[in-house]
Amino acid sequence: MPDTHGGNIFKFAHEHHINPSDVCDFSANINPLGPSQKGLEALNKRLDYISHYPDPTNDDVLNAVADAYGVNKDSILIGNGAAELLYAIGRLPEFTGSFVPAPGFSEYRNSMDAANIPVRDIFYRQRQDEKGTPYFEIPYLALQTFAAKLKGQDGRIIVFLGNPNNPDGTLLDKKYIDKLANMLHDANSLLVIDESFIDFIGNDSLCDNSYSMRSLIYHHDNVIIIHSFTKFYAVPGLRIGAAFANPSLIKKLSAYIPSWSVNTLSQAYITAAVNDTNYIKNTKDLLANESEFMYKSLSAIDDLIVYKPSANYILIEVQNPTITVDNVQRNLEKHNVLIRNCANYNGLGAQWMRIAIKDHNHNVELIRLLSAIFEK
Amino acid sequence: MPDTHGGNIFKFAHEHHINPSDVCDFSANINPLGPSQKGLEALNKRLDYISHYPDPTNDDVLNAVADAYGVNKDSILIGNGAAELLYAIGRLPEFTGSFVPAPGFSEYRNSMDAANIPVRDIFYRQRQDEKGTPYFEIPYLALQTFAAKLKGQDGRIIVFLGNPNNPDGTLLDKKYIDKLANMLHDANSLLVIDESFIDFIGNDSLCDNSYSMRSLIYHHDNVIIIHSFTKFYAVPGLRIGAAFANPSLIKKLSAYIPSWSVNTLSQAYITAAVNDTNYIKNTKDLLANESEFMYKSLSAIDDLIVYKPSANYILIEVQNPTITVDNVQRNLEKHNVLIRNCANYNGLGAQWMRIAIKDHNHNVELIRLLSAIFEK
Repeated sequence: MPDTHGGNIFKFAHEHHINPSDVCDFSANINPLGPSQKGLEALNKRLDYISHYPDPTNDDVLNAVADAYGVNKDSILIGNGAAELLYAIGRLPEFTGSFVPAPGFSEYRNSMDAANIPVRDIFYRQRQDEKGTPYFEIPYLALQTFAAKLKGQDGRIIVFLGNPNNPDGTLLDKKYIDKLANMLHDANSLLVIDESFIDFIGNDSLCDNSYSMRSLIYHHDNVIIIHSFTKFYAVPGLRIGAAFANPSLIKKLSAYIPSWSVNTLSQAYITAAVNDTNYIKNTKDLLANESEFMYKSLSAIDDLIVYKPSANYILIEVQNPTITVDNVQRNLEKHNVLIRNCANYNGLGAQWMRIAIKDHNHNVELIRLLSAIFEK
Repeated sequence: MPDTHGGNIFKFAHEHHINPSDVCDFSANINPLGPSQKGLEALNKRLDYISHYPDPTNDDVLNAVADAYGVNKDSILIGNGAAELLYAIGRLPEFTGSFVPAPGFSEYRNSMDAANIPVRDIFYRQRQDEKGTPYFEIPYLALQTFAAKLKGQDGRIIVFLGNPNNPDGTLLDKKYIDKLANMLHDANSLLVIDESFIDFIGNDSLCDNSYSMRSLIYHHDNVIIIHSFTKFYAVPGLRIGAAFANPSLIKKLSAYIPSWSVNTLSQAYITAAVNDTNYIKNTKDLLANESEFMYKSLSAIDDLIVYKPSANYILIEVQNPTITVDNVQRNLEKHNVLIRNCANYNGLGAQWMRIAIKDHNHNVELIRLLSAIFEK
């Protein structure tokens, strides 16, 4: 439970003697529209029932998620945030090793550490396309080679991949992933794909499978899709997420989830929010505009190498040796603006930062502040 | 995550086509006053912040709980309900066996099953004192004998005990427990005492140690006290609980708790509620009166063997072979009243039920309904 993440506005506000509402948080990747109004109405009605246990079967949530995402109910497990589901994966017997993306979300490693499963990095490679646009390349062939060697051996591994990966936004290629899933299956191994930001991508339907790997669960009994609901639906304070997988794998995982792990307010909120079609459309429209605006505006600042966003966050490398991300961070904090310093990501370092894409006014303000820093 | 507990009013309401608010729930042991008003005010203010991550360090909660309960901050771990903390205990290496009270809370066994640790029952013995009053006797000597034999062996066990135990209300005797803790220490073993209902007992100070075993953590590095906050503070829908133990044990346990496991609304509510002294006093006053009233009223019904309550629930054995608890339950359900059928508790059986102590009007109504059933 190390405090190495972004987004602790309460600690920042306390230390700076301001209200949490005065903090402008670009360090956490949350839907800039805030929560769904329909979700909030359902939550407010449910406040009268906090003296009762949540439904331990999550039945309403399961029905709503199954309908909205086009996944069979028995292929869904609801948890107290994606993190609880990742820790449950670590408890499945008997894995001897794991691979996590570098850079990548730190809870993959934490969940494996808690399960005493050794962890190795999958180092994403920094590349440039023919136009000089930077991107990260996933070492699919190295992973496939490793999986092939594992076949017939005693070892069993868990491979974690983000789709899109956080903090770089790299999307997976279904062609390679399908093959990798097969090879891992032959090695009694597991492929966990974190799609916590996938709802920001693609058309207005949550069932859209043009970018999601969700449909793989019907052909591969060794694939788990992790899907946080707190980023797109803007409720990280509430905690709720899902795992999608083959029914027998869902059943195994559920044994590691304590009773009533999902609180009743999260249940009420998400059941309504996944059906709030206007909110979903408005979020996608806003993101389409703002990610374009931010990518262009940031790219126009000298000294910044900007990675093209796929969801609601942008990874940036500062290429001015006299300005560190620490400097940038401290400067922005004077304006009560938080960004994510990426120094503690394996595969990145002291010159890397990630910013969330927020609403237009906040985005304009951040561009103004960053421009001032780098024009000094 | 089996659905074998009481208190699922949402499922009952759905099946009977009524509103959850029309269900009168004697099956879950929740403070009859409902939530603390001060807590609810804090929760309502925090609703503006659900788009931000909870403070992953639980700092405000830790400060408030440390003050209110007189426990050092580094001896406290906050979790997503007592259940999450029980599951974390199962992950401590390398226990080879466990003992759980029979009857007892089913999550002890579930947490051990999830950790693949074999479970044995500690059968509480039904006794009568010289006046014929029934009570349960804890087999301290058998436990001590087992612990003594374990010394020098390879096995390491976890012993769970409730104080008071649920569903029978039996309180622990510090003299025996202190000795048991020492003997378990010599056998590299752990003693987990669940005090989720202890706040209902004793004087108006939460620091009161006349019944609690909390102070044992300062003399025994192998004792963990589990303390749910959802019973006394009436928020099982929110999820929050604490473990009290030696700092090094707290640190080990915390590795098994995912980041942000406690939602921001629970944090806000509990931080305020543990300081709501009027609410705490009013709860204790109400319980003192109502538990006396219920114990007398139930004892006056022929066919019922009533166990004297220590907290806010009463265990009852029906001694009429023509009326089963199933009958009682079905009859009460016609009036939308739920009770806890104790048939699935090891050590009890089909003739046992548990009822919560609620406010006076509801209690009177339950007595009226039960009297009618047993006077047929």
